[in-house]
Amino acid sequence: MIDASAPLHQAPITESPVHGGIPHYIPVGNEREIFLAAHAANRPILIKGPTGCGKTRFVEAMAGELAIDTYTVACHEDLTAADLVGRHLLRGADTVWVDGPLTRAVRTGGIAYLDEIVEARQDVTVVIHPLTDYRRVLPIDRLGQQLKAPDSFTLVVSYNPGYQNAIKDLKDSTRQRMVAISLDFPPPEIESEIVRYETGLDGALLDSLIALGQAIRSVDAPGLREVASTRTLVCAGGLIVAGLDPRVACRAAIAEPLTDDASLTAGLIELVNTFITVKS
Amino acid sequence: MIDASAPLHQAPITESPVHGGIPHYIPVGNEREIFLAAHAANRPILIKGPTGCGKTRFVEAMAGELAIDTYTVACHEDLTAADLVGRHLLRGADTVWVDGPLTRAVRTGGIAYLDEIVEARQDVTVVIHPLTDYRRVLPIDRLGQQLKAPDSFTLVVSYNPGYQNAIKDLKDSTRQRMVAISLDFPPPEIESEIVRYETGLDGALLDSLIALGQAIRSVDAPGLREVASTRTLVCAGGLIVAGLDPRVACRAAIAEPLTDDASLTAGLIELVNTFITVKS
Amino acid sequence: MIDASAPLHQAPITESPVHGGIPHYIPVGNEREIFLAAHAANRPILIKGPTGCGKTRFVEAMAGELAIDTYTVACHEDLTAADLVGRHLLRGADTVWVDGPLTRAVRTGGIAYLDEIVEARQDVTVVIHPLTDYRRVLPIDRLGQQLKAPDSFTLVVSYNPGYQNAIKDLKDSTRQRMVAISLDFPPPEIESEIVRYETGLDGALLDSLIALGQAIRSVDAPGLREVASTRTLVCAGGLIVAGLDPRVACRAAIAEPLTDDASLTAGLIELVNTFITVKS
Amino acid sequence: MIDASAPLHQAPITESPVHGGIPHYIPVGNEREIFLAAHAANRPILIKGPTGCGKTRFVEAMAGELAIDTYTVACHEDLTAADLVGRHLLRGADTVWVDGPLTRAVRTGGIAYLDEIVEARQDVTVVIHPLTDYRRVLPIDRLGQQLKAPDSFTLVVSYNPGYQNAIKDLKDSTRQRMVAISLDFPPPEIESEIVRYETGLDGALLDSLIALGQAIRSVDAPGLREVASTRTLVCAGGLIVAGLDPRVACRAAIAEPLTDDASLTAGLIELVNTFITVKS
Amino acid sequence: MIDASAPLHQAPITESPVHGGIPHYIPVGNEREIFLAAHAANRPILIKGPTGCGKTRFVEAMAGELAIDTYTVACHEDLTAADLVGRHLLRGADTVWVDGPLTRAVRTGGIAYLDEIVEARQDVTVVIHPLTDYRRVLPIDRLGQQLKAPDSFTLVVSYNPGYQNAIKDLKDSTRQRMVAISLDFPPPEIESEIVRYETGLDGALLDSLIALGQAIRSVDAPGLREVASTRTLVCAGGLIVAGLDPRVACRAAIAEPLTDDASLTAGLIELVNTFITVKS
Amino acid sequence: MIDASAPLHQAPITESPVHGGIPHYIPVGNEREIFLAAHAANRPILIKGPTGCGKTRFVEAMAGELAIDTYTVACHEDLTAADLVGRHLLRGADTVWVDGPLTRAVRTGGIAYLDEIVEARQDVTVVIHPLTDYRRVLPIDRLGQQLKAPDSFTLVVSYNPGYQNAIKDLKDSTRQRMVAISLDFPPPEIESEIVRYETGLDGALLDSLIALGQAIRSVDAPGLREVASTRTLVCAGGLIVAGLDPRVACRAAIAEPLTDDASLTAGLIELVNTFITVKS
Repeated sequence: MIDASAPLHQAPITESPVHGGIPHYIPVGNEREIFLAAHAANRPILIKGPTGCGKTRFVEAMAGELAIDTYTVACHEDLTAADLVGRHLLRGADTVWVDGPLTRAVRTGGIAYLDEIVEARQDVTVVIHPLTDYRRVLPIDRLGQQLKAPDSFTLVVSYNPGYQNAIKDLKDSTRQRMVAISLDFPPPEIESEIVRYETGLDGALLDSLIALGQAIRSVDAPGLREVASTRTLVCAGGLIVAGLDPRVACRAAIAEPLTDDASLTAGLIELVNTFITVKS
Repeated sequence: MIDASAPLHQAPITESPVHGGIPHYIPVGNEREIFLAAHAANRPILIKGPTGCGKTRFVEAMAGELAIDTYTVACHEDLTAADLVGRHLLRGADTVWVDGPLTRAVRTGGIAYLDEIVEARQDVTVVIHPLTDYRRVLPIDRLGQQLKAPDSFTLVVSYNPGYQNAIKDLKDSTRQRMVAISLDFPPPEIESEIVRYETGLDGALLDSLIALGQAIRSVDAPGLREVASTRTLVCAGGLIVAGLDPRVACRAAIAEPLTDDASLTAGLIELVNTFITVKS
Repeated sequence: MIDASAPLHQAPITESPVHGGIPHYIPVGNEREIFLAAHAANRPILIKGPTGCGKTRFVEAMAGELAIDTYTVACHEDLTAADLVGRHLLRGADTVWVDGPLTRAVRTGGIAYLDEIVEARQDVTVVIHPLTDYRRVLPIDRLGQQLKAPDSFTLVVSYNPGYQNAIKDLKDSTRQRMVAISLDFPPPEIESEIVRYETGLDGALLDSLIALGQAIRSVDAPGLREVASTRTLVCAGGLIVAGLDPRVACRAAIAEPLTDDASLTAGLIELVNTFITVKS
Repeated sequence: MIDASAPLHQAPITESPVHGGIPHYIPVGNEREIFLAAHAANRPILIKGPTGCGKTRFVEAMAGELAIDTYTVACHEDLTAADLVGRHLLRGADTVWVDGPLTRAVRTGGIAYLDEIVEARQDVTVVIHPLTDYRRVLPIDRLGQQLKAPDSFTLVVSYNPGYQNAIKDLKDSTRQRMVAISLDFPPPEIESEIVRYETGLDGALLDSLIALGQAIRSVDAPGLREVASTRTLVCAGGLIVAGLDPRVACRAAIAEPLTDDASLTAGLIELVNTFITVKS
Repeated sequence: MIDASAPLHQAPITESPVHGGIPHYIPVGNEREIFLAAHAANRPILIKGPTGCGKTRFVEAMAGELAIDTYTVACHEDLTAADLVGRHLLRGADTVWVDGPLTRAVRTGGIAYLDEIVEARQDVTVVIHPLTDYRRVLPIDRLGQQLKAPDSFTLVVSYNPGYQNAIKDLKDSTRQRMVAISLDFPPPEIESEIVRYETGLDGALLDSLIALGQAIRSVDAPGLREVASTRTLVCAGGLIVAGLDPRVACRAAIAEPLTDDASLTAGLIELVNTFITVKS
Repeated sequence: MIDASAPLHQAPITESPVHGGIPHYIPVGNEREIFLAAHAANRPILIKGPTGCGKTRFVEAMAGELAIDTYTVACHEDLTAADLVGRHLLRGADTVWVDGPLTRAVRTGGIAYLDEIVEARQDVTVVIHPLTDYRRVLPIDRLGQQLKAPDSFTLVVSYNPGYQNAIKDLKDSTRQRMVAISLDFPPPEIESEIVRYETGLDGALLDSLIALGQAIRSVDAPGLREVASTRTLVCAGGLIVAGLDPRVACRAAIAEPLTDDASLTAGLIELVNTFITVKS
């Protein structure tokens, strides 16, 4: 008989959760102060901001500063409360309970970070409610238990206000339990520092790349502002450093991912050609 | 093989249910008398009120006064009757029945508190019907049993009338089985006492915070009235006490969680700046 | 490891089904004669009537008179045929079949009472068909068996015609298998007797309460007629007897459960104040 | 621990399938000849006709004449192919395959009768296809087998053309595999014979009951024609024989089950009072 | 306890798959040449044609000519990829993998025939993609394996273009992987040969039956053309040979299955009466 | 008892994944340079292009050049995150974890290729997010682990912009994590080389086939451009080499698969007859 268990590799795995290497983060406004005050006041935090502006990095940087672990969950419409809290699994003849990431964060006093919370179903947003008011408990109905969160535990949720629509919105009863922090793309001088730090790119090419990002963000077309995020500038910079022609790199990392519309793409390529004039 | 059962932590857990510490609650109207009469007359209770006005606190305070336990369930559209009543679970080679929170409340004669009942599916609202009429029994079909509720058992459900719509409404056949209590935000003098008690904030800053709440509630914009709930005032107070600049705290705890609309946010910030003029 | 089976309480449970105490029921029309004839002719029964008019009581009273048991199922859209008929469950290393309430009623020759049948899905209404024609059998497909119903077995279904809509209606092929009984609220003299019997309330207060019910039912507003059901009058009476101020009791038991509309509530309270002038 | 297996009764059950007692059936047209020819030619049969005209009886009468068993399945939208074909079930430590009713009919060479086939989902109608063409096989994918149907096996499906709509219709590719038989309510003299045979009712009361049925069917109101089916006349007759007042019996068995519309009910009661003038 | 495993019959079953008896098929165009060339060039085949024109027969005849087996799957919207590929099943204490029909066809180098492919869900059409391009592999994700298809393996899918609609259409990315063959009803002389071969009917009655089919197909009413398929003519012929009156047989096999519309049926019966004038 | 495990064949299976034979791929633009730079910069890749232009081939050719394995997943709306990541399966009395293709690609440092990513559900696109930013980890929640991707691991996703619609589009937050490569049909001289290489067809017939493809693509009808893909030209060439008449081959491989519309088919056949004038 075919040994179907063969694909069960035993390769070494990384620590769970990933920590130690605190990511590089440069504050833009008073986001650090609000985060620390909310943490001190035992309040959950809601981070608002466009895609690629550094929300995940900010959370992991704060976790590093507070010396606690981050348990990140990317929310989506098929995520269930059990995915967060845990479930019973069969292990041979025995049944064991396996904690979900939210439960692990509560037990260890870390940060539970629910990315793009508005994508999750209601049962997911409801399961966090008892953690967000004066009770600060996580009910685990399947075990008939309630976990009391230690002081260091912090719940952080994020979403991109640009994506909001009538159907997928955070309920007021969830929002008003949170301390809210608004993030945005960093100003040019900080963005330049970030791209240099992440890719090693420098000099005139770096300056043109940052200027290109500013230019695209100032174009008044729907959706266009977001796509030239700090993340895509870092990506373009990485391709250039890897040896790709700078214009080809900017097309591949900035213009092409944005749109399938031919005239919009042509306009973006013109911008690329205008700003990126230096060869790597 | 990877030992997948490793995440099964054995950390100590809190008692189930949480009790002992009766929360601080100051009655505003005759809600306490109605609750006690309904409890004496063996009637289920329906609490109506806006988010953050203290419904959960009120229920737990009454439970404390009656010296019985509260079993809280935050309802949502994926909650099933089995989540309330219980289910069979495998334990090694054996199958055991695990009571759900409603069953536990019936067995122990406590309060079963179904928060935001209108979010639940019909099978959830139907399962409580035999508990709400002269029979006062909980049928557990999976066991082929019916539990007779003891006198001290009280079913409490709540919802926020401001959220109601045509689709998610409590059926008349459910509503008219209940004794209804309407709650609202407390008057300024009581709200001030609550924020002081919960956060330790006092003096001029406390007064401005309470005045800010009154001001926002009197603005005639849809949804705005609710967001400056007692809960968010307590949250702002907590951030201030944790050392955050009072205006930054009010922005983060009151204005930003409310809305992603730029002009609405600007108006709220103006209100914050008008009312919060004292430094912490 | 956490002993997750701890919540499995072993408290004593009531008999299954509940019987013995035949509820108090006073016939209003010829409902008793039709029920007994249908039972004698081996026909299923369809009871139509508004919420809170006493359908469940009537069925249990007839069961008492016939000295058979009642197996009540509150129908809802997630109820499955297996919930009615039964299912296999694991018990340790063995699999046992557990009868559902319909099967138990067939086996023991009792009354199977499907309350609010129109809320159920089609597979539920279809499973009762072979029990409703000349065959009078319950097929249990999972066991590959058919149960022949004994003579005393009676299927009773109910619904509230006021709730009917195009989507949730009983199919003609189901309806015309039934003998139909229409129930309504009892006339004042009988309703007065019921409230006195159930609560102990008497005298002028009882008379005003009954008059209040008549008054609300005569108001020409959609939905209003049903809410002042016999059940809510009994509820208000119970609160008064428990010591609550009569007007507060009528507000909490009759006016508040009905509506969240401010002007409608105001009108109802005016009615309450007009009719309830005696102190308890 | 509660012995949850207690409800597993061991009461005697009837034979599976029910046979022996061939039901009373009087042919109205050439339905018997077509059925026998289709059976001889190994063709599946489609029976069309209104609710309560005797489709099930006709099938069981033909089965009796052919001395084969009938395996009836009432179709509905939650019926799955596995419900028809069979499934694996755990029995202690072993897994056994349990045939569904269609498979049993194929194995034993009986009649598989799918009542209201249009209510079933596509996977149910598709599973019968290989049984309806020249192959006459039932593939059991879960076993990796195909059963060859013996000559005596006959597939019969039925539906009520009056219920058809655009969504729930039998696909042409299914219909044209069938030999179709149209049934309707019997003429008065045959219907009279049926009601007498089934209930024992006779004389002037029987004549008025049959005349009432004819009268209602001739009223030109949508749905009204069907409800005064032969089945409801038999039901009314049964209630009369059980001692109920004839007019009350006709109201309860014919008028009330039809409609919740007050004026329609009034019209029907007038018809009842016009035709039913004899006391029982 | 009831021995629920009793229905597990051990009757003999036919070989899996059915082969040996190659069905009778008379080519109408160049369908045979295209099929053989596609088979030689290792290309999947798409057969288009109306219901009842002989698609299944054609596939089985080609399989007979190529001396390979056919694994037929009637597609429907609840068919899953696992139904095609296979699944793990418990066998006592062991878990065994059971191949689905597609996997069996790949392993044995036969024909996998997916009938009415457009009824299947996307996961079904996607699972065949790697079998339809240069790779010719079947990935079995559950086993972590990929099966390389032998040269003799041929994938055949079919659908009825008359049924197509915007929702259920074969994706272009699936269609353009296929060699397409269009089938239609055979011309009269071939159709006559088929009906004679299948039923034994001959002479004037056979001629009138074929003429009736041609006449109905030439009527210009939607859907009418398809219903007088070769299959229904064979069915009518079979009923006649079984002794049924020819006009009754044509009504039951051709007119009645087509429609529930009274005037359409009347028109068809007139056609039947015009063409079928000979007694059997 | 029937031995249902019989279909469990033990035929030899191919290596998993398929490699060794690097497919033939001729670059058209700078797609190779971008792919290698993205791979060097540890960036995920998004390939856009019409059906049948060679996306899968390109990916496997690059994998061959990089000497790593490809793990291809054809996405569809029923694909779950567990299908990608892995799941626990019972093996006798033991539970083993079986890696999904994405996990296998991460563990072995290969290419994970998600074909037609826009067809997948959100939970699938979300599970790849942590692999696409600076973290490059694959969280396996069921195991409570995170896998760190080795440098050689590359995530590649593809989609056909022509299929995009409002509902099924890649979220901006996913797109802007990718380096994008646009592919299209190759120019005639390269396409000719491809068809010759794949089929062996040459000379005038090959030239006419390539010209036919160019002609169909220049026709201005919606959808038509895509269907004469390089893949269908290769398919037609293969049928011709297998001995089929060239015009019949082009009809079967190009015209018939495209459309069921009669006039569109006629127009295509005219094109075929115009361009394909040589006999094979």
